Amino acid sequence: VSTAAVFTTNKFCAPPVQASRERMKSSGGKIVGVIVNSGNANAGTGEEGRRVAEAMCDAAAEAIGCSTEQILVCSTGLIGKTMPLDIILAGTPKLAKKLSRNGGADAAQGIMTTDKITKTALVEEDGFTVGGIAKGCGMISPNMATMLAFITTDAEVEPEQLQKLLTEAVDDSFNALEVDGATSTNDTVVMMASGRRGPADPAKLEQAIRKVCSALALQIARDAEGGSKVVTVRVTGAANDAEAKVAARRISRNPLVKCSWRGGDPYWGRILSEAGASGIAFEPEKSALAYGGVTVSRGGIEITHDKEKVARHMEADEIELELSLGLGSGTGHILSVDLGPGYIRENSRTS
Amino acid sequence: VSTAAVFTTNKFCAPPVQASRERMKSSGGKIVGVIVNSGNANAGTGEEGRRVAEAMCDAAAEAIGCSTEQILVCSTGLIGKTMPLDIILAGTPKLAKKLSRNGGADAAQGIMTTDKITKTALVEEDGFTVGGIAKGCGMISPNMATMLAFITTDAEVEPEQLQKLLTEAVDDSFNALEVDGATSTNDTVVMMASGRRGPADPAKLEQAIRKVCSALALQIARDAEGGSKVVTVRVTGAANDAEAKVAARRISRNPLVKCSWRGGDPYWGRILSEAGASGIAFEPEKSALAYGGVTVSRGGIEITHDKEKVARHMEADEIELELSLGLGSGTGHILSVDLGPGYIRENSRTS
Repeated sequence: VSTAAVFTTNKFCAPPVQASRERMKSSGGKIVGVIVNSGNANAGTGEEGRRVAEAMCDAAAEAIGCSTEQILVCSTGLIGKTMPLDIILAGTPKLAKKLSRNGGADAAQGIMTTDKITKTALVEEDGFTVGGIAKGCGMISPNMATMLAFITTDAEVEPEQLQKLLTEAVDDSFNALEVDGATSTNDTVVMMASGRRGPADPAKLEQAIRKVCSALALQIARDAEGGSKVVTVRVTGAANDAEAKVAARRISRNPLVKCSWRGGDPYWGRILSEAGASGIAFEPEKSALAYGGVTVSRGGIEITHDKEKVARHMEADEIELELSLGLGSGTGHILSVDLGPGYIRENSRTS
Repeated sequence: VSTAAVFTTNKFCAPPVQASRERMKSSGGKIVGVIVNSGNANAGTGEEGRRVAEAMCDAAAEAIGCSTEQILVCSTGLIGKTMPLDIILAGTPKLAKKLSRNGGADAAQGIMTTDKITKTALVEEDGFTVGGIAKGCGMISPNMATMLAFITTDAEVEPEQLQKLLTEAVDDSFNALEVDGATSTNDTVVMMASGRRGPADPAKLEQAIRKVCSALALQIARDAEGGSKVVTVRVTGAANDAEAKVAARRISRNPLVKCSWRGGDPYWGRILSEAGASGIAFEPEKSALAYGGVTVSRGGIEITHDKEKVARHMEADEIELELSLGLGSGTGHILSVDLGPGYIRENSRTS
């Protein structure tokens, strides 16, 4: 089956990522299945971890009757713990017998770790369907995070084209998420196209893949550990798109800013301070900052504005910030979350 | 008086920083006094803020009888609030009358904002003394933070030499602090040398300045908002010093890592994951990580170690981490703090 995949950029990437990356190359993007476990990331496990990842592929291949090179493997959970391979080897044949066209919801539940809700998305178009499941709620930042997503379509697409579509969609969705500045060891997005219903309209297919990725990314943001609000930070008027994204990322990552979102406090000075510290071209006197469409500061100082309207906007579950830099036509956005005590509770002990 | 100063690198720097920076240039590093207020940062206040900063210098100059060009001004507190200049103008002549050789402790208290303790340091050597006061407990990260420090010596030093000594000392102390990844709009370190006791041994003077800066930086880390532990993150064996500091900074800034310190959890996988995501040259198989001198992981995997000893070390107020990369001779360190619920309480509302 035509398959595309995007993996973490972390140099301390987990053995299952290494094994899957190699299989994508050796199979030429023709994969039959993915074996996934949650609870143990099989990361920081060295050569033994690599043998475990290979053994998981072998077991899945044997159970469904294909070559081990046609299987990808994903693990999510704690880092640095030995994987209990015997449990996985014993369970895999049983799981294979339960494979079903209707198993999507079970799979979405099976890959959860500290997730509170399952994450699924579906786009149906004339002639084809794109569906996906994902997990992830912490350790989430640029270039993939502790998140896994599996997307399928019945459209016919060649691996190379599928990879291009997926990479672009991931960049604007999963890679525009910012929970806590951490780029995980295990992040993986896999997309498989069965081709059962023949070729699809390319533009419509691209749109459908983007919609599914964005919907899953939004669900991950909503489920962020300790978070209570999803915040879209949009930067416009930057010297170029890359600088816009750098500023949006820096603003989204700062704990002082995240705390002010928690408290519903439109503390615009912190936003401008982060933009000023981000290293991009920035002239305060040309800037303007709006919360929910209400401009709060212009030229680097506060301007008269409807404070009640801003306060109401800050109370909502989803907040919109737009920082206009007035320098060029570069734009970029990041989907972020606030910082609450639950994050600390969740992450101060792992055992 | 020979004076050196280091200011924030933030492009959204506050009007008092702009005014002080210009005065350092126009006076050729010959300054007579510094006027400081706390509670209002006079940042995000635009041209009006600049007039306020100048007026503060004018008032101080008149009160002590010097030129306004010989006065620096520092403000710390909330961003984006109009400074109540009338209060400052009314108070300045009264303050000038209270100037005293014994006023250091009062000054240390006067510059506090959310600080819980005053921060002072003193080094006495044969022939000269270096003393300092500082404030700061949040919004603290590279290249100066919401922190002010004022250091004096009775040694004789030319402004140019003093600037060199101060810049180097600041780089290894205040600029190696990491509380929350925020580079403030107002950070300033000023050092003044009266020359009253003549020239000092250059090496001893350098050492004394470094000691005072490091002592003040440590006090700031101990007083960090919501923090309960001071953590020294040392990276050795990097390709070069710059890469060592990048990795130490990235590790120190990550909230997942900070939470694990909070919980006393030696979660080494998160440390390696941050090193792997920092963009520097990193080969997990050559790395080793020690907590309090006990090596916990080597070659990217956990090794047998004295877990009780590590647990005891993690319970202390001060934790030492050393990540050895095994690639070169580059070293760097960052002084960081853990992340606790108090940080969120302190920063979720500003008004």
